[in-house]
Amino acid sequence: MRDVFVVGVGMTEFGKHPELSLRDLGRQACRAAIEDAGVKPDEIEAGYCGNALASVLQQTTSVGQSVFWEVGIHKIPVVNIENACASGSTALHEAWKSVAGGFCDVAIVLGVEKSVMPKGTALNVGTASLEAQLGDIFPGNFAMMAARHMEEFGTTREQMAQVSVKNHISGALNPYAQFQKILSVEEVLASPMIADPLTLYSCCPNSDGAAALVICSADFASRATSKAIKIAASVLTTGGYDNQRDLTGWEAERSAAAQAYEIAGLGPEDIDCAEVHDAFTICEIVHYEGLGFCPPGEGGRLIDQGVTALGGALPVNPSGGLLSKGHPVGASGVAQIVELTWQLRNEAGKRQVADSRVALAQIMGGSQQGDVCACTVHILVNEQMPAASCLS
Amino acid sequence: MRDVFVVGVGMTEFGKHPELSLRDLGRQACRAAIEDAGVKPDEIEAGYCGNALASVLQQTTSVGQSVFWEVGIHKIPVVNIENACASGSTALHEAWKSVAGGFCDVAIVLGVEKSVMPKGTALNVGTASLEAQLGDIFPGNFAMMAARHMEEFGTTREQMAQVSVKNHISGALNPYAQFQKILSVEEVLASPMIADPLTLYSCCPNSDGAAALVICSADFASRATSKAIKIAASVLTTGGYDNQRDLTGWEAERSAAAQAYEIAGLGPEDIDCAEVHDAFTICEIVHYEGLGFCPPGEGGRLIDQGVTALGGALPVNPSGGLLSKGHPVGASGVAQIVELTWQLRNEAGKRQVADSRVALAQIMGGSQQGDVCACTVHILVNEQMPAASCLS
Repeated sequence: MRDVFVVGVGMTEFGKHPELSLRDLGRQACRAAIEDAGVKPDEIEAGYCGNALASVLQQTTSVGQSVFWEVGIHKIPVVNIENACASGSTALHEAWKSVAGGFCDVAIVLGVEKSVMPKGTALNVGTASLEAQLGDIFPGNFAMMAARHMEEFGTTREQMAQVSVKNHISGALNPYAQFQKILSVEEVLASPMIADPLTLYSCCPNSDGAAALVICSADFASRATSKAIKIAASVLTTGGYDNQRDLTGWEAERSAAAQAYEIAGLGPEDIDCAEVHDAFTICEIVHYEGLGFCPPGEGGRLIDQGVTALGGALPVNPSGGLLSKGHPVGASGVAQIVELTWQLRNEAGKRQVADSRVALAQIMGGSQQGDVCACTVHILVNEQMPAASCLS
Repeated sequence: MRDVFVVGVGMTEFGKHPELSLRDLGRQACRAAIEDAGVKPDEIEAGYCGNALASVLQQTTSVGQSVFWEVGIHKIPVVNIENACASGSTALHEAWKSVAGGFCDVAIVLGVEKSVMPKGTALNVGTASLEAQLGDIFPGNFAMMAARHMEEFGTTREQMAQVSVKNHISGALNPYAQFQKILSVEEVLASPMIADPLTLYSCCPNSDGAAALVICSADFASRATSKAIKIAASVLTTGGYDNQRDLTGWEAERSAAAQAYEIAGLGPEDIDCAEVHDAFTICEIVHYEGLGFCPPGEGGRLIDQGVTALGGALPVNPSGGLLSKGHPVGASGVAQIVELTWQLRNEAGKRQVADSRVALAQIMGGSQQGDVCACTVHILVNEQMPAASCLS
């Protein structure tokens, strides 16, 4: 299996873009990534597009082809991928396999979404329709998770609110973020209740946006104009769909993380910064535990101690995360890699995590009997930096 | 790159199945393929699902996960793929890469669709919406192609009608086909005009159905209970989106075919039978030319001479093709491989093509500036049969 590198990244501002089409958004992100990589469009040998909702919300299919055509990429294999919130990261996983397996040398990965939905509608993902009709839509589902985590581990509403506060501070430092506003714990707790204990500012928004990557083999990376960041692990897995006996974590996440650490020859103690799927505040706390950043039940402590804040030992969601940067579903998994590439290249501006060498991205999607349809974990390494442990 | 083999195939009857859900259809096909392969569900290491329209027509996403869960496949990477009519064959292409690249040993490929649409609706594929509003929907587009082929090469309405007649004869011998009825040239020509010169029986139907494959590495194939059929080439490409100066063929198809022949070390003269994308009668004639079964412009002659009929030198669409077997969009590309596997194993019943050793499947999808979003060509070989040329 060959090494694969990220050599170009780009994204649009996330937010409400009623004036821009999927093609407009996708084109902006692809052009930025291609320019960043210093490649010509006709050097790209494969295209992967992650999108979750265009067919449902815009009745549009074959999104990848229509975007890539706009930037001069054609006559190559193009694949459109849907894996709920993990659509973009699954597109990366498939593109990574194309390069790692020697099927091509250079591929482009696009994640794009216009996910602003009609008010009062709920998404019908997988076979969750019966559960959804019974009220088990995403906010309700994660509220149960939060309640159980509070009951079992003493996690507090304030700790969960701190996740939102922390991510809004980072988002305010990120010009691509949807929200540029700092919130207090009191404001998060006092915002309208969505599903107890989750308030409005405990939930990520619907967003429009796109993000893109150019990835390539080592040979090709050696002549790219940007700093090449190695994809040290790319893992995709699916839940077990057993009756979820433990509501405080996901076996699929623990499994994906364990596989990724083993492939990369690294552990959670090696991670310098991470982007995780903070669709709701409780999620980020649970991901700390699932990814091994702390033992089960101690996610709230990590927040209290400031470990995961900018300036902490292991900053999580320095981009602002889904909570502040926004969540254009199919784009989010790709945007995580864009952010981490910037971090590892020391190009993240005011939100730069100092001395970042190893970064981890985690995102998951879908609901199947309450379990996970797709969970991806990617580990990125800047091999030009000396190794050092930051969580000890 | 490792050799990859088809060791299990299964499909549902194609047709109108208002009583069956996507999950019902998918489950039937997967169970049949798993049983045919003699594998256990938990031996399968990756799942790929091709579906084009569930999000548009059923507002359902993550179809692969919901079907695979029903047959006991979980805790593995699952990827949902949309590439218009080539969704199923693109799913196969990605699964093939997973096995060929050494990422897994055994994968399942599902194509599934409920494509019965509300009357009077037209699909909005890619960026064709403006063209579609101007009447350039699929029947109109292919009618222009037919008119141009008639003008340039003297192809006749009768030759095109013969494609439908031929495929309905094969379909009547296929218990899985939607139509079990033999038609005359006169009946095809006298059926209601859809887009001149294409009549109702010159167009494939909308259908519900599913098809599935189990594919694997050589090591794994050696212990499968079925005859293993080698995937000698798997090629996916996209059109160039230039202004289509030549309406009588597709450059993407010629390119995909040339790549596939080179990879397989075979040529059109080696093909013993083929399944091609006969969405409209004219398509099959154009595919004869694009795949090199005859020189440009001579597709009509092949029909007149009976070369591509059952019993001819190179039977095309022995399953009945899309015209008679039906066209559940995301399933069609997978169903072609199911049929060709049966043919190469000598298990195709009354429609068996004698002494088949090498088979080719071609399907294409989408529309982008009148060009092709995705075209796949697969070449299958039964290596247990001695080589022989049948088109000379």
